[in-house]
Amino acid sequence: MGGTTSFDLAGYVEAKRQKVDAALDACLPPEDARPETLHRAMRYSVFSGGKRLRPVLCLAACEACGGGDRALPVACALELIHTYSLIHDDLPCMDDDDLRRGKPTCHKVFGEAAAVLAGDALLTLALEVVLREGGRALGADTALRVAVEITQAIGSEGMVAGQMLDMEYENREVDGDIVECIHERKTGRLITASARCGAMAAGAAGSVLEALTAYGRSLGLAFQIMDDVLDAEGGFGDLKSGSGLDGDKGKATYPGVFGVDRSRATAAGLAAEAKASIEGLGGEFAPLAALADFVISRRS
Amino acid sequence: MGGTTSFDLAGYVEAKRQKVDAALDACLPPEDARPETLHRAMRYSVFSGGKRLRPVLCLAACEACGGGDRALPVACALELIHTYSLIHDDLPCMDDDDLRRGKPTCHKVFGEAAAVLAGDALLTLALEVVLREGGRALGADTALRVAVEITQAIGSEGMVAGQMLDMEYENREVDGDIVECIHERKTGRLITASARCGAMAAGAAGSVLEALTAYGRSLGLAFQIMDDVLDAEGGFGDLKSGSGLDGDKGKATYPGVFGVDRSRATAAGLAAEAKASIEGLGGEFAPLAALADFVISRRS
Repeated sequence: MGGTTSFDLAGYVEAKRQKVDAALDACLPPEDARPETLHRAMRYSVFSGGKRLRPVLCLAACEACGGGDRALPVACALELIHTYSLIHDDLPCMDDDDLRRGKPTCHKVFGEAAAVLAGDALLTLALEVVLREGGRALGADTALRVAVEITQAIGSEGMVAGQMLDMEYENREVDGDIVECIHERKTGRLITASARCGAMAAGAAGSVLEALTAYGRSLGLAFQIMDDVLDAEGGFGDLKSGSGLDGDKGKATYPGVFGVDRSRATAAGLAAEAKASIEGLGGEFAPLAALADFVISRRS
Repeated sequence: MGGTTSFDLAGYVEAKRQKVDAALDACLPPEDARPETLHRAMRYSVFSGGKRLRPVLCLAACEACGGGDRALPVACALELIHTYSLIHDDLPCMDDDDLRRGKPTCHKVFGEAAAVLAGDALLTLALEVVLREGGRALGADTALRVAVEITQAIGSEGMVAGQMLDMEYENREVDGDIVECIHERKTGRLITASARCGAMAAGAAGSVLEALTAYGRSLGLAFQIMDDVLDAEGGFGDLKSGSGLDGDKGKATYPGVFGVDRSRATAAGLAAEAKASIEGLGGEFAPLAALADFVISRRS
């Protein structure tokens, strides 16, 4: 990762990523624990080259709020949840994707049953980690508050709703409001929760939590718009401008509705809004500002 | 439900069931909340005639330990989790069942994608309910302890492991140890957790918790053996005695290994063990003893 600010985001992110990966390795059951296929499927998907945006965001928010790295169990849980959602979204009955980050998807390698169960187990493990490890690091009250925040972000009115709507609007005419509504749920809610939970783990004041909520919302939407843009530009999109769909899967996307140029401009505006939300909170928030710059400058 | 003791189990269970159903109705999102299909699928499966064994067990354990009905949110969560597991187990890529309790399975009515997501959302909601409502009723420390207990019972070394092993051993020669190992994980762990969580919600002493753990283990295995026996006797089994399999799905079952008569005797022995575990704990435990009798005398 790189950034347009003077802050060394790449080094910062790499350090955090190593910490998160070590903690993920420690909390996942070993591959030789029975049932081996299930545990191999879980590890395969968790360690398949993810950007670790959500855990890095969570750790950066916690650190900025003076909480050091005590959000580490929460950061792990967020990545476990993100991984579970990808495994289930890729299933043949959902988006039917054979590849994820250039590698065969979980169900292609381990079979559909193992993929469904690996997703279920990762979601379950995520909550266990927040409560058990998070409870030790943060105390029961805070761990519970964080876990409730996460469940509300990912449930039937959050992330799962986003995936359901995403499927329901396949190959249908959509407008900008619908695309935003889908994105807000499908990716926005968990990204916002990542920033919020980091702040909550640090015991941040209400005003700081509000600022980070606004930051997370803008960042999450900017991130998803850029995802769509990069997909469209990468040739996967076969863009039918104006229909709201990309031609490949008939999915509702920003570039599908507004075209690539306007989508890029919207993402840039949102990244600026994200930065403005945390302006004045102090130098500790520089990594979060750099993350906002990164989100719109990234190439993959 | 009926029982062989003088205690009126049927009336007791009916009263608890009504309480649980009302609480489930209150915690599930309304059907007209967006995405409607998802919320309809969740409610369809939760209200499809389940026996409510796990919530009744949880409430009975809590009441016996002097906790009144304060375990109600936990009881709801246990039923939501049980429902999620049935929806995912019934999927075409898993056991591929078209009917559940005589009604079309979730994916037959709402499609596979909605069924996967409804299961995901029910699991998520279950944890939210334990933490949010349970946190209010029990305090953060106890709610957290209960939630960790549940996640450990249902994760990749508990219930999900059981389903994975159940599938891995389809159409393979099995012995009694393997069948017991599968059953213990697939249904035993959640049933044991139901009794334990009820006691934990009441703040039961360690010795009582241990007694209820032993009770739950015996009861859970007896329940599953009787499930297999009733299936086999109901003609679904097409039993190939001695192979460890029922002929219909090639599943590892008790009657498949030991025959129906010996399986019934084993279940009766386990029910007696369950009752012995709580003997001497006092009259408040009568409903739990009656439940053990019911489990081996039921006809469906």
